[in-house]
Amino acid sequence: MKAARFYGKEDIRIEEIAEPELRPGTVKIAPAFNGICGSDLHLFHNGPLGLPTADAPHPLSGETLPVVLGHEFSGVVEAIGEGVEGLAVGDSVVVEPLMVDDTCPACKAGKYNLCAQMGFIGIAGGGGGLSEHIVVEQRWVHPIGDLPLDQAALIEPLAVSLHAVKHAGAVAGQTAVVGGAGPIGLLVAAVLKAKGVRTIVSEVSDARRAKAVSAGVADIVVDPSTEDLEAVVAAHTGGAGADLAFDAAGVAPVVHQLLKVLAAGGRLEVVAIHTKPIDLNLTGELIMGDRVIGGSIGYANDHVEAIALARSGKVNLAPFITSRILVDDIIEQGYHRLIANKDNEVKILVSMR
Amino acid sequence: MKAARFYGKEDIRIEEIAEPELRPGTVKIAPAFNGICGSDLHLFHNGPLGLPTADAPHPLSGETLPVVLGHEFSGVVEAIGEGVEGLAVGDSVVVEPLMVDDTCPACKAGKYNLCAQMGFIGIAGGGGGLSEHIVVEQRWVHPIGDLPLDQAALIEPLAVSLHAVKHAGAVAGQTAVVGGAGPIGLLVAAVLKAKGVRTIVSEVSDARRAKAVSAGVADIVVDPSTEDLEAVVAAHTGGAGADLAFDAAGVAPVVHQLLKVLAAGGRLEVVAIHTKPIDLNLTGELIMGDRVIGGSIGYANDHVEAIALARSGKVNLAPFITSRILVDDIIEQGYHRLIANKDNEVKILVSMR
Repeated sequence: MKAARFYGKEDIRIEEIAEPELRPGTVKIAPAFNGICGSDLHLFHNGPLGLPTADAPHPLSGETLPVVLGHEFSGVVEAIGEGVEGLAVGDSVVVEPLMVDDTCPACKAGKYNLCAQMGFIGIAGGGGGLSEHIVVEQRWVHPIGDLPLDQAALIEPLAVSLHAVKHAGAVAGQTAVVGGAGPIGLLVAAVLKAKGVRTIVSEVSDARRAKAVSAGVADIVVDPSTEDLEAVVAAHTGGAGADLAFDAAGVAPVVHQLLKVLAAGGRLEVVAIHTKPIDLNLTGELIMGDRVIGGSIGYANDHVEAIALARSGKVNLAPFITSRILVDDIIEQGYHRLIANKDNEVKILVSMR
Repeated sequence: MKAARFYGKEDIRIEEIAEPELRPGTVKIAPAFNGICGSDLHLFHNGPLGLPTADAPHPLSGETLPVVLGHEFSGVVEAIGEGVEGLAVGDSVVVEPLMVDDTCPACKAGKYNLCAQMGFIGIAGGGGGLSEHIVVEQRWVHPIGDLPLDQAALIEPLAVSLHAVKHAGAVAGQTAVVGGAGPIGLLVAAVLKAKGVRTIVSEVSDARRAKAVSAGVADIVVDPSTEDLEAVVAAHTGGAGADLAFDAAGVAPVVHQLLKVLAAGGRLEVVAIHTKPIDLNLTGELIMGDRVIGGSIGYANDHVEAIALARSGKVNLAPFITSRILVDDIIEQGYHRLIANKDNEVKILVSMR
């Protein structure tokens, strides 16, 4: 079968590989659409993040490079392994793309997103969505009913965003500031809106602010390079400040700025990956305001709710699909364009044919 | 009347001042015992923290230096102003030593500890416990029933500790690591024990660890300079790590160490004041573990519960009273000894006569 495999930095090859075999307890899926994620971009431009490399197999998949790519994907069930119930050939599904070690303390506590050995299907082995077929354990396969397969490719980043919003303890009636309106910032804002939270989206890019408005996920947009974010938030909250803030930018100045716009007792949730340490003034920025900083990663038991949000229309994923390409064009029209045209692209969907 | 007044750095004078007058809605109290707090020490050794200074009166008290000291104190009601109900002459009480601006957003949200203009009675004007009489608005006066007046002087730092433990969301059955067994660390551990949380107290001082054990607030003590705290916590939690950690030390290495001993999804509560920014790795230390850092300051609506904890015996404050002195000896036997003998002293109580 045809698959896109990652060999190393700037080395992705579309090639023929063996088709995976159905095993008991697994489901065989024909992938439909794949989203390109920030971590795919990072892999492509900077090389392997860690595991697996050519000489260090991932402990759970046992695989080394090359690996099949694609971890944000939807597909259609092609075959059902022995013992699998509740799924049928022809069902539309998404894959929660994880490999975990159920014996680790985090997994035993139900927090499998924090599994000590966790690996992503589509990054660390186990196949990926950028192939004609994939075989996955049933526990990771979620039926999506009549949700369109293209939108369903965004369920994975929606689950990330949902996990962060739940981790932050958001409740209806609150006001949240979202710093950064890239794919995750937009989806965090979408989940907040779905939960009845008022959203103020702070973003320097005109195109991204426009997208936040046209997609209906921002009640208020602010350009923090020309407007006084703190003053805008104060004006919209009777001087109190925001209950919540989400850092979807991943740079220190945004963290400090978001801590400033929080109300007494407010919480900042860091969703973005920071590549540098940040100089935090614990006394002034946290203690003196009973404030909290939370960080969250991935998802655990969030896919069912993410799918329900999309199916019910509370979150409309359609506006976030900005391009559709074939796997053969993934380098130029995918990885390169996402960087060259980053302010206008949200999700580029890749299909095998 | 006699009072101890703060004039500036290393300048405290015991002198005769005018007795405060009872006004409608206020209570006149004869202070019994005062604790010496870390902020008193800081004031004495480093000078005014901010307000008030000689030329900048505190916005709520309207006072400038000198100010009467003493904000952790118990006393006996001497007189009741017009309109005051529920208190009688002779009642034992503690004072929640605050002045707040009820019109600020934090106060309106019930979080008066975060009042924009907040001042402490005994630091920012309004009299203090280190005097023969004080007049305080009734809202700040809490009856303590038969709780001994000496122990009651510790209700204020107990309320700080209770506020932090509640802010952290501690629940029975959890395991918490307390970093630092000074007065606040010990009281945090005491509140945790009262709430059914298992406590692991990490402290380099032999004397302080011994106090944590003898006072019954530590289930396990660790000397992090000679023992591997992370390994001890892992051994006592089946490898999972602690649910909660409390930084009662106020230095960066303790923060990093406590973040390492947290379980997936765990929370660090910073109770200590940090005088320097800390280099935090948001991705590694927070995000990759769904972890949270909270900071909390002071108390709001916590005194009634703090008093109940002490009266019920769930928290025994007696072991934390390590010396008793007269106000005339406050400099040598109070401020200087608390530093010279810091590992053996917890609370030094000061009385006027």
